[in-house]
Amino acid sequence: MMDSPVHFEDFYVGQRFTFGHYELTQEEVFEFAREFDPQAHHLDEQAADDSMLRGLSASGWQVGAIAMRLCAEHLLNKTKAAGGAGVEECRWLKPVRPGDILRMEVEILEVTPHPRRPVGFVKMAWNLFNQHEQVTRIVTTPVIATRDAA
Amino acid sequence: MMDSPVHFEDFYVGQRFTFGHYELTQEEVFEFAREFDPQAHHLDEQAADDSMLRGLSASGWQVGAIAMRLCAEHLLNKTKAAGGAGVEECRWLKPVRPGDILRMEVEILEVTPHPRRPVGFVKMAWNLFNQHEQVTRIVTTPVIATRDAA
Repeated sequence: MMDSPVHFEDFYVGQRFTFGHYELTQEEVFEFAREFDPQAHHLDEQAADDSMLRGLSASGWQVGAIAMRLCAEHLLNKTKAAGGAGVEECRWLKPVRPGDILRMEVEILEVTPHPRRPVGFVKMAWNLFNQHEQVTRIVTTPVIATRDAA
Repeated sequence: MMDSPVHFEDFYVGQRFTFGHYELTQEEVFEFAREFDPQAHHLDEQAADDSMLRGLSASGWQVGAIAMRLCAEHLLNKTKAAGGAGVEECRWLKPVRPGDILRMEVEILEVTPHPRRPVGFVKMAWNLFNQHEQVTRIVTTPVIATRDAA
């Protein structure tokens, strides 16, 4: 990462950050699926091989949670982030498989100050890649404190 | 649930399903946050009280994963579902707190057969409620096998 934004004012449209190295194991895929996404194509290798996804893959919600983890650790926790209202877009472009090594490229899309409170909305794309290609695109808008809030 | 759809052809626009009873504990909120969303307002009660969310709340990704769990268990696992390409909309309308008891109301929004393959796209809203009000709305489009696929 080139610089570490701390306040809302440090973000600008077109800004990019690259970070993260998350190696997904088969045990993690099974564990998450057992708890949150108990569908056969995430739980059973034979069912996964027979499925549209042609092999074992992680739940999309696990992939989103891993993306969240990378962004919290490497970007949002350096700011005073205060949550967000949702996800504008979440596309699972390619299956994420056990053994994949994931990294994140964030692009800032819009920065909008709050009309009254000392925070702003930072709309960003989380582009998640494995070793070969982009696997997921998530667009979300965390609320981040301004300098005045400190 | 009134009936259990099994194939794509069993779904129709306007169809509704209500199910689920998921009681969220504080330990689950902390555990998920430590693994996937290590931001202070999900990890620390004092930081949570001081935050925009005014108290401890679950990561939005945990709420989405719980919604996935309820839908897999009560709806999708009765069909031959084959995954999906993403989430069209995910709105965290209200914080989800430890002690909340969550239930799901699904509404079918669109049903679109695949032009060539024996599957169809079932666009649905997952409306998640606690004891008092709606907390989350997710719109997603699982791919579900037709009768011909069997």
